Amino acid sequence: MLIRSIGTDSNRLAHTGTLWYDPNQPRIPSAALSAPDADLLASILASGAAVRVRITVACENRANGESANVIGEIVGHEKPGEIVLLGAHLDSWDLGRGALDDAAGCGVVIEAARQIAQLPARPRRTIRVVLYANEENGQSGSEAYASTHATELEFHAAALEMDSGTGRPTAFSWRAAPSTLPLLAQMTDLLRALSIAPSTEEGEFGADVANLLETGVPLLNLWQDLTTYFDYHHTANDTFDKIVPRDLDKVTAATAVIAWCMADAPSAIERVPQDHRKLE
Amino acid sequence: MLIRSIGTDSNRLAHTGTLWYDPNQPRIPSAALSAPDADLLASILASGAAVRVRITVACENRANGESANVIGEIVGHEKPGEIVLLGAHLDSWDLGRGALDDAAGCGVVIEAARQIAQLPARPRRTIRVVLYANEENGQSGSEAYASTHATELEFHAAALEMDSGTGRPTAFSWRAAPSTLPLLAQMTDLLRALSIAPSTEEGEFGADVANLLETGVPLLNLWQDLTTYFDYHHTANDTFDKIVPRDLDKVTAATAVIAWCMADAPSAIERVPQDHRKLE
Repeated sequence: MLIRSIGTDSNRLAHTGTLWYDPNQPRIPSAALSAPDADLLASILASGAAVRVRITVACENRANGESANVIGEIVGHEKPGEIVLLGAHLDSWDLGRGALDDAAGCGVVIEAARQIAQLPARPRRTIRVVLYANEENGQSGSEAYASTHATELEFHAAALEMDSGTGRPTAFSWRAAPSTLPLLAQMTDLLRALSIAPSTEEGEFGADVANLLETGVPLLNLWQDLTTYFDYHHTANDTFDKIVPRDLDKVTAATAVIAWCMADAPSAIERVPQDHRKLE
Repeated sequence: MLIRSIGTDSNRLAHTGTLWYDPNQPRIPSAALSAPDADLLASILASGAAVRVRITVACENRANGESANVIGEIVGHEKPGEIVLLGAHLDSWDLGRGALDDAAGCGVVIEAARQIAQLPARPRRTIRVVLYANEENGQSGSEAYASTHATELEFHAAALEMDSGTGRPTAFSWRAAPSTLPLLAQMTDLLRALSIAPSTEEGEFGADVANLLETGVPLLNLWQDLTTYFDYHHTANDTFDKIVPRDLDKVTAATAVIAWCMADAPSAIERVPQDHRKLE
C-alpha cells in the first residue's frame, strides 16, 4: 500500500504515521509518498500508462527498549498533595528530530514551571511537570504514570498537555465541573491580554493526559495555530530551525498563567462529574 | 568535504551543485548537507564534542550520453535570415524533476512563440526557439549550437534565455549597441503594463546564450523574482507543484512582448560594439 502524505506541505519528504494491522489479516507492506511524488504517480496512472514502482524501505520493528518518564515539581505551600499536571512528551517520530513534536512542548512546560518557581511565593497547590516517555508508539509512558500514581489521581486538580509545536496560542478550552467556571473565567480574563479566547469547543486534549479524565481529573486545552504544524510533523523536516521563538514565548506565557491560576486557586477544584468522564 | 547547502530553504533536502577538481590535486569526496543538518553538526562541533559522520553517497560519474538541442522557428516575413533567439534548457539537475530549472523556461519560450504564431501577421525577423541540451553539465548544447550555426551568428539580432523558474518578471536589461536604445525604450513602454522596469544593471544573461556575445549578438535579460527560486533549485524539491501558473503567465507575456518587438523592429539592429563583447 502506498499512501499520499496527509501533511500540508509540498516537499519531497513523506509525512508518516502509525499503521495498525488487524491480527486476522495479512500484514501488507505500506509506505507513505510525499505529495509531489504521489501527484506524479497519480497523473501517470490517470494517463493510462502502466506504472512500476520500486521502493526501498529501511524501517524495521525492533524489540521494545526501556525509557522513563521525567518528573519535576514545584511543591504547593498550602495543598501540596493536590497536583496541577503540566505534560509534554520526550520521544519523537524517527524521521525528524522532534523539535516541534514534542521538544517544543517539553520546553514550554519546563520554562513555564521555571518562571513560576522564580516568583516570590509558591502557589497553593503543587505544579508537577511530567515529560512522558513513548507517546508516539502507544502512550506506555502515560499508562505507566497512571498506574504508578494511581492513588494520587483523585488529588490531581487539573492536567494540561502541550503537544502542538511552536504555533501561537489562539484559544483556551476545558472539561471541568460547572463549579470551576468562575475560576476559568478569571483565567480567560488574564489570557485575553495574549489574544487568547475562551472556546466553546473542547478541541483535543493531549494523548498523554486524556486517560486521566476517567478518574475525574479536569482537563485543560490551549489551542495553538497549527497552520504550519502539519508541514513538518512526522517528517524529516521536524528540526530546530522550525521553532519560532517569539511564538513559543507566547505559548509559554499562556501555560504559566494557566498553571499558576489553577495551582493557586483558593477554592476547591471539583472533579469532572461521572457522566462527563468520556471523550467522544 | 561537507558543505552547508547554499540554498535559501530550511528543508532536510540538500542543495547541490557542480564540483570542479584541479587536475593536479587529489579528488576529495564531497557532499552537501541540508541547512538543518549542517546547523546541527556545527552546533555539536561548537560544543567541543567529537563528531563522527557516516554518509552514504550513491552518485557516480557515468560516460557521456547523446542528447540533442531541439529547435523550432517562426520564419520572418521580411528578414527571414535574421534571428531572434529564445532559449531555455531541456536538461535538469538529477535530484529533482527540473520543473523550475528549466521546464518552466522551456514552457515560457514555447508558449511565447505559440502566441506569436497565432497572430494574424508574422514578424519581420525569424523567431527561433532553442531548447538546449546539457546546460547543467558544461553547456555542450550551447557550444554545439554556436559551432553548428556559426555562419548564422552574425545575423542573430538578439538572444534571450529563460532560466529562472516561475518567479514574476521584475525588470528588463540588455547588452546592446547604443543605436538599439530607442527600440528598447519602446519595448519598456509595453513592459511597464506588466510592472516590469528597465534596469540599469545587466543582471545575468543565460548560461546558454552568453557565448553569443563574442560574435556581437545583443543579449536581453528578463529579471525574475527569485525569492523562492533557490528554495528549490538543484534540490529534490524542484517539482511541478512549485510552478505558480499566474506568475508563469506573466513571464510568458513579457517574453512574447520582447520577442515580438525585437523580431518586428523596422530598423536594423546593430551588433554589440567590439569592446563590449565580454561579460565581467
